[in-house]
Amino acid sequence: MRQSELFTKARREDPTDEVAKNAKLLIRAGFIHKEMAGVYSYLPLGLRVVRKLENLIRRAMIALPAQEVLLPALQPKEPWLATGRWDKMTDLYKLRDESGREFALGPTHEEVVTPLVKNFLSSYQDLPFAVFQFQTKFRMEPRVKSGLLRGREFLMKDSYSFHRDAADLKRFYEGVINAYRTIFKTLGLGSNTYLTLAAGGTFAEFSHEFQTLTAAGEDIIRICAACHLAVNDGIKNKQPVCPSCGRELSGPQTAIETANIFELGINFSRVFNLTYRDEAGTDRLALMGCYGFGVSRLLGALVEIMSDDRGLVWPAAAAPFTVHLLSLGPANGRAAGAARELYERLQKIGLEALWDERAVSAGEKLAEADLIGIPYRVVVSDRTLADNKVELTERRAGGEKRLITADELCAFLG
Amino acid sequence: MRQSELFTKARREDPTDEVAKNAKLLIRAGFIHKEMAGVYSYLPLGLRVVRKLENLIRRAMIALPAQEVLLPALQPKEPWLATGRWDKMTDLYKLRDESGREFALGPTHEEVVTPLVKNFLSSYQDLPFAVFQFQTKFRMEPRVKSGLLRGREFLMKDSYSFHRDAADLKRFYEGVINAYRTIFKTLGLGSNTYLTLAAGGTFAEFSHEFQTLTAAGEDIIRICAACHLAVNDGIKNKQPVCPSCGRELSGPQTAIETANIFELGINFSRVFNLTYRDEAGTDRLALMGCYGFGVSRLLGALVEIMSDDRGLVWPAAAAPFTVHLLSLGPANGRAAGAARELYERLQKIGLEALWDERAVSAGEKLAEADLIGIPYRVVVSDRTLADNKVELTERRAGGEKRLITADELCAFLG
Repeated sequence: MRQSELFTKARREDPTDEVAKNAKLLIRAGFIHKEMAGVYSYLPLGLRVVRKLENLIRRAMIALPAQEVLLPALQPKEPWLATGRWDKMTDLYKLRDESGREFALGPTHEEVVTPLVKNFLSSYQDLPFAVFQFQTKFRMEPRVKSGLLRGREFLMKDSYSFHRDAADLKRFYEGVINAYRTIFKTLGLGSNTYLTLAAGGTFAEFSHEFQTLTAAGEDIIRICAACHLAVNDGIKNKQPVCPSCGRELSGPQTAIETANIFELGINFSRVFNLTYRDEAGTDRLALMGCYGFGVSRLLGALVEIMSDDRGLVWPAAAAPFTVHLLSLGPANGRAAGAARELYERLQKIGLEALWDERAVSAGEKLAEADLIGIPYRVVVSDRTLADNKVELTERRAGGEKRLITADELCAFLG
Repeated sequence: MRQSELFTKARREDPTDEVAKNAKLLIRAGFIHKEMAGVYSYLPLGLRVVRKLENLIRRAMIALPAQEVLLPALQPKEPWLATGRWDKMTDLYKLRDESGREFALGPTHEEVVTPLVKNFLSSYQDLPFAVFQFQTKFRMEPRVKSGLLRGREFLMKDSYSFHRDAADLKRFYEGVINAYRTIFKTLGLGSNTYLTLAAGGTFAEFSHEFQTLTAAGEDIIRICAACHLAVNDGIKNKQPVCPSCGRELSGPQTAIETANIFELGINFSRVFNLTYRDEAGTDRLALMGCYGFGVSRLLGALVEIMSDDRGLVWPAAAAPFTVHLLSLGPANGRAAGAARELYERLQKIGLEALWDERAVSAGEKLAEADLIGIPYRVVVSDRTLADNKVELTERRAGGEKRLITADELCAFLG
């Protein structure tokens, strides 16, 4: 894409109404726009990152296997009354239609998915299966000062699995843990993301969270560096040592819950009588698991952890573009012509490139490239062309900088 | 995908709580699930169709060019008060947070997008540009008996363009008309979809709709067969003849409005003071256009128009899979082995195939394949293999049926 065609523009100054680093930087760089506290619009660059994250998570879910669905945001009141969460869940948005009938605006989808799968589950032979969706969720969060880390409207992948017994649920549950670990690793968050034992709520004794260490986090965890596991501070009395090796845990550290896994057991299938018939002809309640991954929160966490004092820094798997091509000098100059040729060549080999061909100063282009944070910056100028080369710089901290030919560049990135 | 892995199942009977053909068939075939009147869940097969339609529309929008964004559903009250639509729009869902502050649940996004682009528009050099999004929209529709043709929660592509003058707006407006025409043509709806002159509402004298002829439609249009244009019956006094050739129009025909185009002019930019500075240094209001395409409605319209008494019939561009592979006979039989080999081969050449390898009767498989409506059905049985062939049948009315080899099949479909 040509940068002059992007309707957004980077700002020189941080927005004054944000305290969170992720929101400040993403707004400055033109990735998101704040509509009101806890509600953001995704602009072209930000949406490209969202789609990258979604596709990364989607591929992992399909491989489990799980099947993609799209459940509604507008949900009838009755199933929420049935589970007791209509009154218990204090952050539930409620609304009425013209007849006075009440609805919930979905913060989660157990109340929708459990009655739905009842239509398709009859025999043990139908089990196991799992569904997932990418959904806009709504929660009436009281505190929303953390940008994308805590939203009133936010993007989430949620999934629900259905099983005949605890062993099969555990097998799938472990599969999701492995899939999530791979996603964090792919994004470069593997080393600072911990599978964390946490409270199970009303569903089970424990649940699992993926907690990513960051000063911006709102949770406190205690880690076991040897096992790369953690315990949520909320259950430190119940679980004072590493659940795996039994050794002492670290002192408290702040982290953000980027994903979670709940063993729902029969809590929802009991309410909605979600049963299957076993080999002996007996009707039994299906067991359920629930697996969340905060997409907008993950985007915020990436910024909190990877950005530096020059701006955003994207891992390749989440970057809005792979290459930021900058042509310096006049629009009709030699550098612009060479950059155009290179831009077309990059597109031909399937590389996503943002070409800054705007009539602005070299300093502005370089500063904005740093702010936007695309992994590879390629500068084409009269100076680099004197050697018949371009200048390649990696955006990450300590990233390499070198003069190479266009052929070498394509071979390196292709 | 193996059909045994699909958690949905086709039903033998129509649902009793639906009157619309599209909802009845899509529910029977396991494409959607009704949550309540006007609110549906998209199941794996239905979501695949939604994604196909979205990608078709997305490619057309990017080519215009327009840039993809994602705006929020939860919208502050203030801009809706500013435009007067907080009170005027009777189908607007309104809700409150814990502090009593009110919000709208977005049925459209002029109130969000106009203040948003104010942050990025300063000079005439920034114009023109356009944004689009795929969004879940909410409307408190009083009548919802038409399945996906009229929803309280529905999927829509909406876009907004920004211009310096009427001539540039007209140029873009014509571009969208052409893009929409191509989309309808690609889906096989070109001949029964009419660019229709309609009332412009409070914005302009006229607007344009794309109306697709179907008995299930809720609009009445009068067509000019020669010009392939129509006039919405609502303006027949104002425009009693063909707007192009001046000839008499047909009698009234029912149709469904699948897309629309509004010339918003300065109606919204005036309210939010969306201005740009022209060459002379004068601040001027930007002109806007608005372009909707109902994704879930299009899905419903495809079913209304293309399905037959055996079930759904998908055009290739919208089909959940390209090939429905049916292996008849026992799971360890010769046909099953040959089908597995063919299934893997189809996947290798990039064809999306659904393989019905379930242990159900041939009759059930064939009837269900007709109901699901995938364009090409390929039957592998001991009978076809006796000739070293498979049986290919096109799902469309009068579709060919022939015995061919696997090589011929791959060459034909590849």
